[in-house]
Amino acid sequence: MKICIIGTGAIGSIFGAHLARVEGVEVHAYDVSQPHVDAINKNGLRISGAADFTARLHATTNAKEIPPCDYGIIATKSTHTRPAMAQIAHVFANDGAVCSVQNGVGNEEIIAEHVKFVIRGTTFPAGHIIEPGHVGFDIKGDTWIGPFEPTKTPMSGVNELAEALNKSGMNVIPLEDARGAQWTKLIFNASTNPVGALTLLHHGAATRLPATGQLFNDLIAEGEAVAKAMGITLHGDPRAMVQKGANAPGKHNASMLQDVLAKRITEVDFMNGAIVKWGEQVGVPTPLNKTMWALIKGLEHSRTNP
Amino acid sequence: MKICIIGTGAIGSIFGAHLARVEGVEVHAYDVSQPHVDAINKNGLRISGAADFTARLHATTNAKEIPPCDYGIIATKSTHTRPAMAQIAHVFANDGAVCSVQNGVGNEEIIAEHVKFVIRGTTFPAGHIIEPGHVGFDIKGDTWIGPFEPTKTPMSGVNELAEALNKSGMNVIPLEDARGAQWTKLIFNASTNPVGALTLLHHGAATRLPATGQLFNDLIAEGEAVAKAMGITLHGDPRAMVQKGANAPGKHNASMLQDVLAKRITEVDFMNGAIVKWGEQVGVPTPLNKTMWALIKGLEHSRTNP
Repeated sequence: MKICIIGTGAIGSIFGAHLARVEGVEVHAYDVSQPHVDAINKNGLRISGAADFTARLHATTNAKEIPPCDYGIIATKSTHTRPAMAQIAHVFANDGAVCSVQNGVGNEEIIAEHVKFVIRGTTFPAGHIIEPGHVGFDIKGDTWIGPFEPTKTPMSGVNELAEALNKSGMNVIPLEDARGAQWTKLIFNASTNPVGALTLLHHGAATRLPATGQLFNDLIAEGEAVAKAMGITLHGDPRAMVQKGANAPGKHNASMLQDVLAKRITEVDFMNGAIVKWGEQVGVPTPLNKTMWALIKGLEHSRTNP
Repeated sequence: MKICIIGTGAIGSIFGAHLARVEGVEVHAYDVSQPHVDAINKNGLRISGAADFTARLHATTNAKEIPPCDYGIIATKSTHTRPAMAQIAHVFANDGAVCSVQNGVGNEEIIAEHVKFVIRGTTFPAGHIIEPGHVGFDIKGDTWIGPFEPTKTPMSGVNELAEALNKSGMNVIPLEDARGAQWTKLIFNASTNPVGALTLLHHGAATRLPATGQLFNDLIAEGEAVAKAMGITLHGDPRAMVQKGANAPGKHNASMLQDVLAKRITEVDFMNGAIVKWGEQVGVPTPLNKTMWALIKGLEHSRTNP
């Protein structure tokens, strides 16, 4: 089985390194960072933290070098999904299926513009790049995957990919309907991410301060109302995820705060923007999510010194 | 007539310097900045920009040096009203009346804890400190003053203070009910200030970006609903103030953005916090103002590295 990792940031690297250890699985990695790719090819991909090992796999910045693959796992920022898929789509021309393990919702729709079969996915592990070729595996966690409904991806493919991942040491649950898991994480992210990015508070502090802790809950309530109107049953309580994260040791900055501090474009369109868009479709008002979206858009705009 | 200026930042300095030129008016200035006070006493208080002159007045950091005064004009940040009044109250023990020209609402209630007569005020001029003893007068504008209702301040006193100020070159309109003018500026400030502070956008850019421009309007609508339920007739349209400010030349940062950049405590309790509090009293929901309040509180909290 050939699997292509699309985007080897922290999450893509963790998936790719695990899979490369499974017998019968050949892993190819596509990334735009030449130093990271060169380090992987020279010394292997090193994982440290929640797991410690170095894996050998084929990495490249040139998508044309990658052979046809059975599966893809895309782990780019949501904002990079479209350009990445435009480069890599040919790898899946032979009915290969691409699984998103990205943040937010809306990535599968973009992937489906480029390949025949798409798998919806949500992942909870976290990590960070330590240096080229070396990724810190900060938090272990489950991954849920299931067919992306419009592409009618066969469940057999979802199960096969899940099996390979479970053999690799990642914990993956295949589901007929993975929307519940995805929306649960979406609602968590759409509350904690913009508030962290706008206040500069790490997750624990924002949860404990009564004003922002209440805002988390108010944002979650809007997201839950939209999911309910869409007929999605959530996979647990986003509030419990907030509390669990707040009780973890250390000061964890939400990924959107990391983006803001690094002056990167954020994933707000795939988080609060997506909740607003789906809310409009099902007739549920989302004024607070719209406010978060507007403020983050404004913050991004301010960097252009308008 | 003796008038005491309480807080000689840009606005207090502009009022004090103008009044010091009026025959029969003796101006005393109380401020906590020793360099500013020393410069005023040595070289006079210099105003440049929309008006150019240097005025002689008595400045001190020691409130005990100030004689009994007929009127006070308090121009501190709202967050400094209570400590400033605690120091200066004795100056008005002989039925002196203190007029607020501060931002937001809620200052008069604090002043009334310290003196018998309070005058409600709202002012539109803008300026900035250039150096100790020298203030830039950036924008001319009107000031509205009227009795603070609970202290039953006689209208004769309001008129007398307005007359002195009009003689000085400031344009002051005395009103039986000054709440409309105050709430109009409050609603303007409570929309433009937190959005500017959270996005780092200057006023013109935030007005022109559709996402934040719409957020201004949504915040204004909440404030207007609260004012209406309180029986307050606004003094014009806050949206027109937003547009007028956006069309002014240059890049003007809202005062709350200036506070955030300087890591000062903001006036959000007297702006969005006050709209939320009054909204609760009159039964009008204010979710967006509550959200702005929570985010600014979070941003202030993040400086303590919690």
